[in-house]
Amino acid sequence: MPLTAHAPLTIDEERFAADLSAMSAIGWTNESGMQRTTFSDAHAEVRTWFLDRARAAGLRTRVDGAGNHSAILEAADPRARTLLLGSHLDSVPSGGRFDGALGVLCGLEVLRSVRDAGLDLPMSLEAIDFTDEEGAVLGTLGSWALAGELTSDALASPRCGRDVLLSGLERMGTSEEGLLTAARDPAGLAGFLELHIEQGPVLERAGVAIGIVTGICGSVSFDIVFRGAARHAGTTPMDARRDAGLAAAALMLEVRETVTRDFAGCVATVGDVHLEPGAYNVIPGVADLKIEARAQHDDELDRLSAAITELARAQARRWDLDVHIESTGRWSPEPTDPRMRAAIAASASRLGLTVMEMPSGAGHDAQVMAKVTASGMAFVPSHHGISHHPDEYSSLEDCINGSNVLLGATLALAEEL
Amino acid sequence: MPLTAHAPLTIDEERFAADLSAMSAIGWTNESGMQRTTFSDAHAEVRTWFLDRARAAGLRTRVDGAGNHSAILEAADPRARTLLLGSHLDSVPSGGRFDGALGVLCGLEVLRSVRDAGLDLPMSLEAIDFTDEEGAVLGTLGSWALAGELTSDALASPRCGRDVLLSGLERMGTSEEGLLTAARDPAGLAGFLELHIEQGPVLERAGVAIGIVTGICGSVSFDIVFRGAARHAGTTPMDARRDAGLAAAALMLEVRETVTRDFAGCVATVGDVHLEPGAYNVIPGVADLKIEARAQHDDELDRLSAAITELARAQARRWDLDVHIESTGRWSPEPTDPRMRAAIAASASRLGLTVMEMPSGAGHDAQVMAKVTASGMAFVPSHHGISHHPDEYSSLEDCINGSNVLLGATLALAEEL
Repeated sequence: MPLTAHAPLTIDEERFAADLSAMSAIGWTNESGMQRTTFSDAHAEVRTWFLDRARAAGLRTRVDGAGNHSAILEAADPRARTLLLGSHLDSVPSGGRFDGALGVLCGLEVLRSVRDAGLDLPMSLEAIDFTDEEGAVLGTLGSWALAGELTSDALASPRCGRDVLLSGLERMGTSEEGLLTAARDPAGLAGFLELHIEQGPVLERAGVAIGIVTGICGSVSFDIVFRGAARHAGTTPMDARRDAGLAAAALMLEVRETVTRDFAGCVATVGDVHLEPGAYNVIPGVADLKIEARAQHDDELDRLSAAITELARAQARRWDLDVHIESTGRWSPEPTDPRMRAAIAASASRLGLTVMEMPSGAGHDAQVMAKVTASGMAFVPSHHGISHHPDEYSSLEDCINGSNVLLGATLALAEEL
Repeated sequence: MPLTAHAPLTIDEERFAADLSAMSAIGWTNESGMQRTTFSDAHAEVRTWFLDRARAAGLRTRVDGAGNHSAILEAADPRARTLLLGSHLDSVPSGGRFDGALGVLCGLEVLRSVRDAGLDLPMSLEAIDFTDEEGAVLGTLGSWALAGELTSDALASPRCGRDVLLSGLERMGTSEEGLLTAARDPAGLAGFLELHIEQGPVLERAGVAIGIVTGICGSVSFDIVFRGAARHAGTTPMDARRDAGLAAAALMLEVRETVTRDFAGCVATVGDVHLEPGAYNVIPGVADLKIEARAQHDDELDRLSAAITELARAQARRWDLDVHIESTGRWSPEPTDPRMRAAIAASASRLGLTVMEMPSGAGHDAQVMAKVTASGMAFVPSHHGISHHPDEYSSLEDCINGSNVLLGATLALAEEL
């Protein structure tokens, strides 16, 4: 008889709520929210807490060469593949309680619930906390390592600098060489499921409980520098100026107008502008912009990139400026696996929860894992769309709903995959 | 017989050129141009050089309680009033050779030329180097002190801080109390003449040798802060944003458009913008702008101020933001004295030099002196309008022309005033 024929198995809400509360306290500061950046004491503490809770539930634990922390519920069959469930316990500086942490606790709770129900699934389950998703060191370091796609180039110039990387790895009990040992044979993986907060306002605005992620958006980023002439703001007539700030301003507005008009569902943002010399009485001679855009499909991302760079060149001509455009990053979009999406949808349906399909505008470990295994991802609503901020909040009910959806999807996938 | 009936008296070009060259070397660095900020060693050195050159020419010298350095050619009549000629020897950091220094050397050269010609004028002449025009300490400190308009408020919070002010004054051989002793009785002053580089491109573009300054523009400045919501740039749809950066951008363009369209002859500049948090992947939640505008008439300045603040409020409404507008300064326009303008025009005409009337967009010691005595000001062309920069340049011919114009104007005024 199929495991999913009866009333759906659900998690232990009381245990889940108590653990969510306990976990949220580790690294929390009243002044500036969650401080669990990679390599921090609070980060190490919450990871230890996670393993302790797993052991207390009778689960096996493991820390791999990339510092990824896992709780494991093994199938009876030693040849069984492993379905991974997880996210990350690190936070941005001054972050919130839910980003990443919810997905790790969900994974742990799914394993505990399966074990409590005495089910013997035809695949092993592994709740995983990936190292450094937020990028204090590199960004999705743990999932890159597990996917076997960590490059020596990336390790040569980590955001935190080489010294911090090496001493941090040592503190985690591993090393640069150790990172490479974290790679898994994709043949042993059945897939990856990640529960995450939406980090945007879409679900809340639509009044929907569960977002089924169709794919993780790709992104491009640019550093665009306009150069004109820094002149005296009092003595240089309006028609004799080469004001780099005005080109920056016009570009900011045109990028917004273009993406809104021509690229439905995409986003583009000028996150920073720096003017030089930056004084009341000097016309800006230099304007330096940080621009980022995201799209769900590679061709759309390419067209959006081309549109932005052409707008920048046109503004340089309009204001008689030089322009330098530097591409500072490109991430390809990664669609999620259709079977994973179907399992999430079916599970939500059995639980009577409303769903909507949506792309993820943010990057996630699921984006990396999609390169080597079938990946699926579910969102729960973020209050006011706030994230990467102490005010980040998702209700306990939404967190429980999401965890139940992943539990149901896990049981369904255990039969299918 | 009137002094101006003959072929015009002119300066000693060779002496003037040699002194301009020697003076320009003091504080000059190959890396970053002129470094003669107030209280610096180079500033003290050039002021000593100025007094030495005055004494070498048989002129009396004087340093007042505000550190203003003067060379004096006294009239035979002890009751004669004094016509001041000068500017300032301090520079901005990494400045040029001509801003201020030209006017001081011109004053010295006018005195030497009158003395060499053996003329006994009915008024005393004083070439003056005002302290701290550029504002490392306070801005036009020396002229404020001489005009008797230095306030204890201004001295309570100088830009450089109280400690630097007090130790700097001590190094100049004066004190806070000493500053007050520099005030002169306006009854003893016949007027003030200042030669300066234009610091803008107008004369060069028009091919005109001498600018007759109609008045020094007034200015207003504002610090305008828009506050929206800093949200994830990937997960927040374009229609769910409160992007403070976009309001800043729109305001920058509208300020330019409005001043160009509705305020002929005025200027307005957004010199700096600061976005927070200022990252690729976060929508700017705060945008902080520094805006400055200048006009020739008080009512025009008020209308321009009102227009700018209304544009800022309209942008806040358009983008659903909060806005805080802080006025950070207001200087009233100061017209120059019509008799001074006429004397400059007549002198230039006798020398066969082309002239045009123009406002000064930049502030000057003449702006302060206009509060207590008849002030006049002449400009010579600035190559490419560059100023406050090592590339600041005015040709020797233009500098000599300007000095001859002030010499002729001095002789005319000595008869008239």
